[in-house]
Amino acid sequence: MTDEDTTPADLSINQKTLNNSSLPEVVDECVAAGVPAVGLWRESIHEIGVGEASRLVKSAGLRVSSLCRGGFFTADSPERRRESLSENRRALEEAAELEAPCLVLVVGGLPPGSKDLAAARRGVAEVLAELAPLAERHGVRLALEPLHPMYCADRAVLSTLDQALELAEPFPVEQVGVVVDTFHVWWDPRLFEQIERAGSRIASFQVCDWLTPLPADVLLGRGMMGDGHIDFAPIDTAVRQTGYSGDVEVEIFNEEVWSRPPREVVETTVDRYRRLVRPR
Amino acid sequence: MTDEDTTPADLSINQKTLNNSSLPEVVDECVAAGVPAVGLWRESIHEIGVGEASRLVKSAGLRVSSLCRGGFFTADSPERRRESLSENRRALEEAAELEAPCLVLVVGGLPPGSKDLAAARRGVAEVLAELAPLAERHGVRLALEPLHPMYCADRAVLSTLDQALELAEPFPVEQVGVVVDTFHVWWDPRLFEQIERAGSRIASFQVCDWLTPLPADVLLGRGMMGDGHIDFAPIDTAVRQTGYSGDVEVEIFNEEVWSRPPREVVETTVDRYRRLVRPR
Repeated sequence: MTDEDTTPADLSINQKTLNNSSLPEVVDECVAAGVPAVGLWRESIHEIGVGEASRLVKSAGLRVSSLCRGGFFTADSPERRRESLSENRRALEEAAELEAPCLVLVVGGLPPGSKDLAAARRGVAEVLAELAPLAERHGVRLALEPLHPMYCADRAVLSTLDQALELAEPFPVEQVGVVVDTFHVWWDPRLFEQIERAGSRIASFQVCDWLTPLPADVLLGRGMMGDGHIDFAPIDTAVRQTGYSGDVEVEIFNEEVWSRPPREVVETTVDRYRRLVRPR
Repeated sequence: MTDEDTTPADLSINQKTLNNSSLPEVVDECVAAGVPAVGLWRESIHEIGVGEASRLVKSAGLRVSSLCRGGFFTADSPERRRESLSENRRALEEAAELEAPCLVLVVGGLPPGSKDLAAARRGVAEVLAELAPLAERHGVRLALEPLHPMYCADRAVLSTLDQALELAEPFPVEQVGVVVDTFHVWWDPRLFEQIERAGSRIASFQVCDWLTPLPADVLLGRGMMGDGHIDFAPIDTAVRQTGYSGDVEVEIFNEEVWSRPPREVVETTVDRYRRLVRPR
């Protein structure tokens, strides 16, 4: 095997990238391609049980780069807030059992019927304050994910890296970090200064491309690197310059990618990572 | 006529809100409803000629709140840049003839095949420097419009009010201003501080709502105020507190709104403005 054939040592495939494959199949594909890490989703873990998922991944020699996802903090009643907290507690326990370094948080959109964005954002800070000490006890870092502003109303009132850092900075760095996901932040005129500011707060680095036109379901616009408009290498360089030594997780939601054989998707991922994310 | 029936003195209907009506029809509907101003689009003006459009609007006693649009500055060759400049020069002449206070600029997306967002953004600043003195000579203000970040790749690399102000501030305030369009900026965690910073730079204030789910064509997600998630009154208050005394222009791109009778759309617009944009 030549040096060029070596799969990057910090590449992770998020299981959503192979959405039509079971977790055992995802693990097999990663092992076959020499990909050392996987990003997991709670829904799929629940299907086979957390213990079984953990054994499966570890016995294959893989590590878990992140667990998706906790969050949905923007509750509009004390009851819903309690439910959200207990759901996030369970997610932290699962992340700990999977030895995932971080639990990715999608904080939630506006509560139904509400237009009070400022209040929803304050609510996120309040729930975070309750959850952060718990996270440390579990040895799992909360990773606040700013989502693209087009998801502000219905999915995440956390819209920029700047805003995520303001939320994270009151907490110890080992309790609360941030996610840098190229799809969500590539457009940000302050991206590079905010990555530098983030420093050791970067808990997860996720990559995929921004496609045009956006598909009818904007949740499925996450494309394979190289198929869209994002220049990955400068973002990867900036993230590494902060000292980030975690995995680069490829998370693609895209019907066309999902329709292809998983082996081909993994091979393309490795190839695009080498040529576009971290070219030599 | 009671006070409550008086149409707001600073309401403008952008002609795109009545997309299936001709300019004479739009003018008639505004007059019938007592709406004092219209926002115009160059394409429709060209159909009947700028002189005729100007006479039509003025003889009806209306004023033009803005002309859409110039821009598309992100040329990737000297030829295309020259073309863009001469097109923008024509747009300024038209705005002057229409006595529009500002020419709205949609700056353009990434040039075809390019992923160099920083270079595209620098290019915008360069073209702006050539155009700004011309604008002053025509007595028309250039109005930089930050578009929602979901249009960054293909329509406008200008994505936030903060970024628009940075571009505008090197120029005299009468040459270059900014547009505050609720649809594009409502999500911005720094919106209110940036509106305050904008001060006398606000050249145009446009309103419409953010709908979910976004329609398949994301250009058509601009909804009638009250049909979506935006809380207008605090934004209107913040804009007025800067001393902005221009019109509040309602610009809706939406198939459902377009399918309704124009009179009904204008009536709904007036009603929603009264109840949601500037409630007493």
